[in-house]
Amino acid sequence: MCELLGLCFNKPIAPSISFIGFRQRGEVNRHGWGVAFYPDRSAQVIKEPINAGASELSNFLKDYKYMSSRILIAHVRHATVGSHTSMNTHPFQRELGGKDYVFAHNGNLIGNFRKELALGQYRPVGETDSEHAFCYLLERLRKRNLAVWGLADFQFLEKELREINRYGIFNCLLSDGEHLFAYRGFDEKRTLYLLNRVPPYGRVRLLDQDFSIDLGKRKDPKTFGFIVATRPLTDEAWIPFPSGRLLVFRNGKTVYSDTKMPKSVRDSPVG
Amino acid sequence: MCELLGLCFNKPIAPSISFIGFRQRGEVNRHGWGVAFYPDRSAQVIKEPINAGASELSNFLKDYKYMSSRILIAHVRHATVGSHTSMNTHPFQRELGGKDYVFAHNGNLIGNFRKELALGQYRPVGETDSEHAFCYLLERLRKRNLAVWGLADFQFLEKELREINRYGIFNCLLSDGEHLFAYRGFDEKRTLYLLNRVPPYGRVRLLDQDFSIDLGKRKDPKTFGFIVATRPLTDEAWIPFPSGRLLVFRNGKTVYSDTKMPKSVRDSPVG
Repeated sequence: MCELLGLCFNKPIAPSISFIGFRQRGEVNRHGWGVAFYPDRSAQVIKEPINAGASELSNFLKDYKYMSSRILIAHVRHATVGSHTSMNTHPFQRELGGKDYVFAHNGNLIGNFRKELALGQYRPVGETDSEHAFCYLLERLRKRNLAVWGLADFQFLEKELREINRYGIFNCLLSDGEHLFAYRGFDEKRTLYLLNRVPPYGRVRLLDQDFSIDLGKRKDPKTFGFIVATRPLTDEAWIPFPSGRLLVFRNGKTVYSDTKMPKSVRDSPVG
Repeated sequence: MCELLGLCFNKPIAPSISFIGFRQRGEVNRHGWGVAFYPDRSAQVIKEPINAGASELSNFLKDYKYMSSRILIAHVRHATVGSHTSMNTHPFQRELGGKDYVFAHNGNLIGNFRKELALGQYRPVGETDSEHAFCYLLERLRKRNLAVWGLADFQFLEKELREINRYGIFNCLLSDGEHLFAYRGFDEKRTLYLLNRVPPYGRVRLLDQDFSIDLGKRKDPKTFGFIVATRPLTDEAWIPFPSGRLLVFRNGKTVYSDTKMPKSVRDSPVG
């Protein structure tokens, strides 16, 4: 399976992210890694169709203060659909309405989704179910003529994500550079967790996971935000997403949540 | 001014490209660097809104055998329009018809081009004249419902490039992952040069330029292709582009040329 990691903070942060899964768990093959972030309104996506733990580039980026961004999406791929090539490696990127969207998926779709989830202007470059789903989503948003995201748009997106979810296992992260959209599908085994980070925080204590993330020693006590991951990355109190729900974050706060989530998440507490 | 570099070979090559301009010519300020290549059908674009000569990332990539590609486009930016940010840094990238297009521009457009070169589905994320021109071009190609590039399409593209050229200085490189499109505009001072490379070739002898490129010691005598650059990068016999003309390369050969070009270019000689 694949691993997702998403960050949404109120100020740009420059995290050190280590892709360590393979090194720790040699028995599990990893077929690619990728990261997307926003130096400004535009997205920068870097990916490689090779084992992340063995990548000199991912190792270089870990210590390079290049990924300064309020929003970041990272992905480790365990290929289920498509060859081990760059075009099949997440995150994917497209422009809509002058905004750079990026997308990463955990799961796999089956059945006749390529025909029934009809495409329009956006066409996959690679072979994956994931890129098809992304192109479908963007076409739906394009037809909505979205100018500014509001409650009705979040509900619309959630409905579309559930529509895709009918075809299989579907957890995903999406961003337009302003919002981080995180959806957990209906599959009970395919989890997604949330952590609200407020200063002070330093290096996290690792569990046995694919990612390690170090947010650095924040000197600014006003920097806060959320981390979303397939599984808890630390021994802190990560909050599981409810099934079939979308959560939306902006500027380090929750802007669309679920009544099943703790009040601390719904109210998007700050430090 | 900006510097362009384009490669089109018949087989994937992994060149070492050094962005050395600033180091050599401290008096000239450089505001960004970027490179686009195709690990497969998909494009990978990496850029930074900082001085290329001072970038640890560009230095790392130089020795990292990551950029294995038949086609590569690199750009050093000297900002004339827009702030020194990632969104204004070349190359730009968009998908059309399941193909990843990348684009880099040398020059600047003035006048009412933002209104008169009407946009459609593609919208700039940043502020540059260059990204506007790219979005305009893609919309024109989109409306053409292009499936396979042919002579009439090259002529159509050349006509559109000349249309954009009416608004200012406009040299550019464009690719869809299969073709390298190189256009030199009508400005006499804004040059574009071409070199046909056939084995054996090793490290090139440098002139005082922004780029240095090392194609490595090719063991395969059947690897050949073209290099396009704003100015000659070596003391070899680079061929100047005629004004207002598009040249198109595919698989290391010329597929659309000009009667003013030497027969060796028109016939796309191989080693």
